[in-house]
Amino acid sequence: MAEIRIRAVEAEDGDNGFFKILSQLTHAPVVPRAKFAELVRKERADGSRTTIVAVTAEGSVVATGAVMMEHKYIRGGGICGHIEDIVVDSEFRKAQLGKKIISKLVEISREKGCYKVILDCAEDNAPFYEKCGFEKKECQMALYF
Amino acid sequence: MAEIRIRAVEAEDGDNGFFKILSQLTHAPVVPRAKFAELVRKERADGSRTTIVAVTAEGSVVATGAVMMEHKYIRGGGICGHIEDIVVDSEFRKAQLGKKIISKLVEISREKGCYKVILDCAEDNAPFYEKCGFEKKECQMALYF
Repeated sequence: MAEIRIRAVEAEDGDNGFFKILSQLTHAPVVPRAKFAELVRKERADGSRTTIVAVTAEGSVVATGAVMMEHKYIRGGGICGHIEDIVVDSEFRKAQLGKKIISKLVEISREKGCYKVILDCAEDNAPFYEKCGFEKKECQMALYF
Repeated sequence: MAEIRIRAVEAEDGDNGFFKILSQLTHAPVVPRAKFAELVRKERADGSRTTIVAVTAEGSVVATGAVMMEHKYIRGGGICGHIEDIVVDSEFRKAQLGKKIISKLVEISREKGCYKVILDCAEDNAPFYEKCGFEKKECQMALYF
């Protein structure tokens, strides 16, 4: 694991397996280079989201996750962190990489002044997140267009 | 109900009962006027969030809700709408105001091109959201700082 580094996503990661990793989670076709670079630039510029990647020494993306900052009107204008789109390459799941990704996103949320950080997960993954310090709260509802 | 109007939040709503309504949901002290005006200005300018309010003919806020736009890297750079902080004044809960607020936020999400809209709610409120077209998906986990 010594050779795995966690850092913020870069526009070049589009060519380093970023979308291949995301495809292990859901439908994630490659975003055209210019649009991807713009999304990465935007999240850095306005701080609305921090997407991180775990990369090997060779530069291949083997895990990713993101935390989005929600500026609320409750809690005196408090910030809620939303962890989204966590995925670890199936070949790296034994290396506690998931835990490291979550730990980094929680740390970022704390540094940005969030009063809480939340995420939605499948029931089966709840024990993993409990080990990361989370507790079950509500139920997630979805409406697909 | 004819006299209830639903519209985007305005900086003046801070003086019209907006925080009193939010306090029925959770800890929601009044956000100082300048900070509140800046938050309202920001959400309008960048489209990151749309907060709506239901107001009486006299201008009092009696319900509110918001939808936040999450620009993802999955789904070809798709947008997920997050519905947040829904609250209807206890005296107006029989008037289907909650359903109207949700319906408006779903409509906004659709217009903004979201591929889905999600929300977290207490188990007891799931039947209400099912009537609004949502289905139960995952479980929400939270970590409070």
